[in-house]
Amino acid sequence: MSIDCPSPKNEFEKILLAHGSGGSLTNKLIHDIFIKSFNNDLLNKEHDGAVFNLNGNRIAFTTDSFVVNPIFFPGGNIGELAVYGTINDLAMCGAKPLYLSASFIIEEGFEIGKLELIVNSMKVSADKCNVQIVTGDTKVVEKGKGDKIFINTSGIGIVPDSVDLSPANVQIGDKIILSGTIADHGIAVLSARENLSFNSEIKSDTAPLNDLVEKMLSVSKTIHVLRDPTRGGLATTLNEIALKSKLGIMIDEMKIKINDQVKAACEILGLDPLYIANEGKLICFSEPDSAEKLLIEMKKHPLGKNSEIIGEVIDEYKGKVILRTTIGTKRIIDLHSVEQLPRIC
Amino acid sequence: MSIDCPSPKNEFEKILLAHGSGGSLTNKLIHDIFIKSFNNDLLNKEHDGAVFNLNGNRIAFTTDSFVVNPIFFPGGNIGELAVYGTINDLAMCGAKPLYLSASFIIEEGFEIGKLELIVNSMKVSADKCNVQIVTGDTKVVEKGKGDKIFINTSGIGIVPDSVDLSPANVQIGDKIILSGTIADHGIAVLSARENLSFNSEIKSDTAPLNDLVEKMLSVSKTIHVLRDPTRGGLATTLNEIALKSKLGIMIDEMKIKINDQVKAACEILGLDPLYIANEGKLICFSEPDSAEKLLIEMKKHPLGKNSEIIGEVIDEYKGKVILRTTIGTKRIIDLHSVEQLPRIC
Repeated sequence: MSIDCPSPKNEFEKILLAHGSGGSLTNKLIHDIFIKSFNNDLLNKEHDGAVFNLNGNRIAFTTDSFVVNPIFFPGGNIGELAVYGTINDLAMCGAKPLYLSASFIIEEGFEIGKLELIVNSMKVSADKCNVQIVTGDTKVVEKGKGDKIFINTSGIGIVPDSVDLSPANVQIGDKIILSGTIADHGIAVLSARENLSFNSEIKSDTAPLNDLVEKMLSVSKTIHVLRDPTRGGLATTLNEIALKSKLGIMIDEMKIKINDQVKAACEILGLDPLYIANEGKLICFSEPDSAEKLLIEMKKHPLGKNSEIIGEVIDEYKGKVILRTTIGTKRIIDLHSVEQLPRIC
Repeated sequence: MSIDCPSPKNEFEKILLAHGSGGSLTNKLIHDIFIKSFNNDLLNKEHDGAVFNLNGNRIAFTTDSFVVNPIFFPGGNIGELAVYGTINDLAMCGAKPLYLSASFIIEEGFEIGKLELIVNSMKVSADKCNVQIVTGDTKVVEKGKGDKIFINTSGIGIVPDSVDLSPANVQIGDKIILSGTIADHGIAVLSARENLSFNSEIKSDTAPLNDLVEKMLSVSKTIHVLRDPTRGGLATTLNEIALKSKLGIMIDEMKIKINDQVKAACEILGLDPLYIANEGKLICFSEPDSAEKLLIEMKKHPLGKNSEIIGEVIDEYKGKVILRTTIGTKRIIDLHSVEQLPRIC
């Protein structure tokens, strides 16, 4: 080794599963290591992707690696997830997704039949969104040095001139719209992983949100930010926006929809659905005057039919998320530092 | 599992290390699985990246996952390699590299101090090329389900209107220029992995080729194709061009430079340097009339000072690569199907 490594000072100097949870340790890692070193205006915005100007075109660029376990789960598989995940990140930037890359790290001994299934499902998913997979890479690691298959997708899209989405745009009074039920993806993956069986099968909500976003942007010019509450769930995503906007967020427990099966599973497993991953839902911050009109439009879309205004941006509790519970009390919903569910996406 | 998988028919239906070697099994996997399914004009070109038109801009887009073992080796580390690897793929498309993404899959227990070293070296490498790392992702997998750290980088660059590089442009009579010695990277990584010690340390040639390419394109309008002979080495890259162009390639063993230490190591280890990876070299196919002028320009550049015309495109042996040996005989250099060195990049 030609480079000297500083020796780790204590146990916290090692990577923990929670560093990948999307919670407070992920946040610390991003700030202390990645942003501190790479440090540039585009990265520092901490959006789902970077948006930059290229000879007059506004381009969105995003990347995600997928390590979900198991690779096939009720409602989807790692390939579909990898395509929709990156399409959704582009959509959250307000971009029309155009091109994807696909890069595979495969463990020696993995069945080629399964690879074929995954690749075909990526093709079907991309076609559904009019997106092309135009470049790729394949690496193989020895048995025991990977876990079946990991997939990275990166994506490019075009952002219309009229669109400007950023946590920095959030204002006091903004209404917060959630596009449907929460926690379906996380609980579906967990059930498959642990072979849990509930009364009826819980399915992942894996879906592409670009069409819903296009329709939303066509009826409203006053959307301030869009985010998909994936890893870390609704609670984590709202916390990130509260921190970035330096404003308070108040949400109403009564308004947050959860499928009965998912709610029951969360109770049995002792998991808080607010922190469980979604893969086909979005949160929208909109100026209050146009929120109702936007909600009506969202409800017309198959992926937004359960949309609801779940809360608003307030002048108190700056940088924090507050939940008004069904019994009328208030509690702070903070960033978790422990890993609820590893390898959920 | 909600999707039925076809059961593997025989042992060849499982992924082997050789599927990641860059040789004939990689080629088969790319054609039988990826190109067959994703099937589009941009991917089917099988260049180092995709080049497409976006509102009048020609954009190059490329991706690579890096799984090199060990992650620190003489002359570089996985972070530097990940940045330069993708910059080089963009450069081989004739693009000026602009933006990179960086996505990390980290094994639980990995030292954060080492992550910091790797990330800092990515920053230094990107800065050196005037490229920004603008978006990223981090996943963590359980101990034993990964191997320290895997890094994906994807990249975006702009291709000048005057530039059109593709194996399809190759013509009979084209001169083939190689920018320096071969096999340094592969032997350096192997030595570090196996704790081999040679008389003096063999260093990887890891380097960014974008500046050399920019200078080459500024003096010549008749470059037909550029490629960096990474995984699979010079032999594999030349074979790919021969297959794609449907022309023959004749190279001269006498003209191919190999560092003495590297040559000795290859002899001891029984490895053919023609198939060993390089990470800071390129091959250029040029019209014969301007090849000498191009060679002079390349020799002026620190990364091209050992450039040499090593062969030419011929009307015989279509789709094949022929080596004229030092003793004057000819032998066919074909695509290897076995893995010489796994996890070299």
